[in-house]
Amino acid sequence: MKTQAAVAFEPGKPLEVLDIDIEGPKDGEVLVEMEACGICHTDAHSASGAEPWRKFPFVPGHEGCGIVREIGKGVTLLKPGDKVIPLYKSECGHCEPCTTGKSNNCDTIMPTQKLGVLMDGTSRFSYQGKEILHFMGCSAFSQWSVAPEISFAKIAPDAPSDEICLLGCAVTTGLGAVWKTAQVKPGSTVAVFGLGGIGLAAIQGAKIAGAKRIIAVDLNSGKFDLAKQFGATDVINPTQESTPAAEIITEMTQGGCDYTFEAAGAIPAMQSAIDASHPLWGTCCLLGNTPNEARISIHPTAVLGGRKILGCTFGGIQGRSELPAYVDKAITGELDLKPMVTHRLSLADINHGVDLMHAGKSIRSVITF
Amino acid sequence: MKTQAAVAFEPGKPLEVLDIDIEGPKDGEVLVEMEACGICHTDAHSASGAEPWRKFPFVPGHEGCGIVREIGKGVTLLKPGDKVIPLYKSECGHCEPCTTGKSNNCDTIMPTQKLGVLMDGTSRFSYQGKEILHFMGCSAFSQWSVAPEISFAKIAPDAPSDEICLLGCAVTTGLGAVWKTAQVKPGSTVAVFGLGGIGLAAIQGAKIAGAKRIIAVDLNSGKFDLAKQFGATDVINPTQESTPAAEIITEMTQGGCDYTFEAAGAIPAMQSAIDASHPLWGTCCLLGNTPNEARISIHPTAVLGGRKILGCTFGGIQGRSELPAYVDKAITGELDLKPMVTHRLSLADINHGVDLMHAGKSIRSVITF
Repeated sequence: MKTQAAVAFEPGKPLEVLDIDIEGPKDGEVLVEMEACGICHTDAHSASGAEPWRKFPFVPGHEGCGIVREIGKGVTLLKPGDKVIPLYKSECGHCEPCTTGKSNNCDTIMPTQKLGVLMDGTSRFSYQGKEILHFMGCSAFSQWSVAPEISFAKIAPDAPSDEICLLGCAVTTGLGAVWKTAQVKPGSTVAVFGLGGIGLAAIQGAKIAGAKRIIAVDLNSGKFDLAKQFGATDVINPTQESTPAAEIITEMTQGGCDYTFEAAGAIPAMQSAIDASHPLWGTCCLLGNTPNEARISIHPTAVLGGRKILGCTFGGIQGRSELPAYVDKAITGELDLKPMVTHRLSLADINHGVDLMHAGKSIRSVITF
Repeated sequence: MKTQAAVAFEPGKPLEVLDIDIEGPKDGEVLVEMEACGICHTDAHSASGAEPWRKFPFVPGHEGCGIVREIGKGVTLLKPGDKVIPLYKSECGHCEPCTTGKSNNCDTIMPTQKLGVLMDGTSRFSYQGKEILHFMGCSAFSQWSVAPEISFAKIAPDAPSDEICLLGCAVTTGLGAVWKTAQVKPGSTVAVFGLGGIGLAAIQGAKIAGAKRIIAVDLNSGKFDLAKQFGATDVINPTQESTPAAEIITEMTQGGCDYTFEAAGAIPAMQSAIDASHPLWGTCCLLGNTPNEARISIHPTAVLGGRKILGCTFGGIQGRSELPAYVDKAITGELDLKPMVTHRLSLADINHGVDLMHAGKSIRSVITF
């Protein structure tokens, strides 16, 4: 069958939206009709060619929500009609990370997922007879997509896809970092560096967790209104201060925050997030990556007093087991995703969405199919 | 009254053992007759003049054990005859670290302790009418010493002082790091870098905690027999390998250790300890410090998978509350301190003990009074 998809044909070129071929699900796989997908920096980063190892062409998109329409042989976890979020971190339930709960980095799919193929080593996408690769096990910038059943979280049927899709990446990363990885306690002090989708979700998560003070830091003051709406009690724009942000925060909190989160993907923000956490009991959780070799530099005394430096991806949560509860919080309204969706676009307009993101004009643009 | 003490009169000079004057305890203080004290690198480091801020002369020693002989006004926690370990981390029970349990860095004494005086701003030691300063709130290289009551852990009366004194610093640092800070689980894999008193205690702690594999790393193969006696299952001397220790350990453990501990006080060991911990769920606990500005360099991906980097001093434990239970383990024999005391010396021979330590010939030399 055919599916409309946005394809990254060549590194650094805009995505091309066109009808490509998609095969049905094989053993253990399901076919999903995507209803919505957020545009994330990671999609653009991978399509830019910045990852020398990545093969083209491929179908990006990894922040989706859709409906299972067909299941392959042996599928037991899902049935047609189920609403799902595609997971870029699968949960097989059998590997060491899954069974021990020590990590959400299920290793069953990783070797093939990184190559852009499904577990049998082939792709379900093609165009004019040539293979088009999958992306992060999701390829959600396609109206139809195929992936193994262990790569989907089954969620409540009444979840609004065009908001819930954000739980496929950014929002869950921020919430999971706060709730599961760092485990922010009621009454604590929190600072969040970087107010994109992840950082704003971290702020909202900290508010829900009962943090008493939440300090939002960004180089773009245009993000501050939304940060306050989600629960930030204070805002700092380092470009408008003569004192480093970490020093200001240390002063504001009489010694440093109980928890800091870095969601900017920049080394200076990471260094500040470490410095702004309390030297005796602070936890600094890194969430952003850097596209190059730049490194963080720490003296051993940074942790000898008791400070912890840690990090996670996808919030550290197991997608199939834990994501449905996050979705339920959004349905009941405890979690407010509406303000995060600043733009809704058709797949045909996806490159406009990428431009809005790069210009810092959107929190999340969501493609609706 | 007089007390025999080893005094650091000038930076970099050998300690001088002589009789100096000591005043009795003031309000809230107690006078302790020291029975034993281990010699630690920190004593020598501070006496060397490497800390530009430190004032001389002072009485070093911070790994002691003794008996309370006299109490000052208002003392309620101790009485004459109590066996105690002097604490370089006091536990007042009232400050934020003490009441919340978030840190063992009680802040009641710190400002004055660093200056080498007691809480009223004065010293109890003098020589020929000139003030001699206290050290780390302990000054245990003196047969008699005075400190606030909150600076002593009251321990079982039958504890053998010449072994138990090691719980005043090195052994507790290693045990607490394993049991309290990192919380090593049964069946886990552990690597320990640096086999001094702290590292050997960490190995023993890991063994008691039920670790299934304990890898000991040191540049001095002479330490390996003792490491094995305490529970090490494997040993690595990086100077005798062409592959970096972290790579060997990653290979041995199919991916990295659940826990690594750095007790060498050297940046290369710290980097190795980070690299040798499992990138998805490993905990790397730094225990050593560096005397200079050298720093650890990490890429954000070091923690993004789920690895944690943390550290502690004195094992992260609260001395008055938690140390007595450690002492009890030594009394019952669950914890074996005997092999750690490689030399017993009189105070007059203290500089010989320092030489043995610098030459790597002792694990711990203990002064007995």
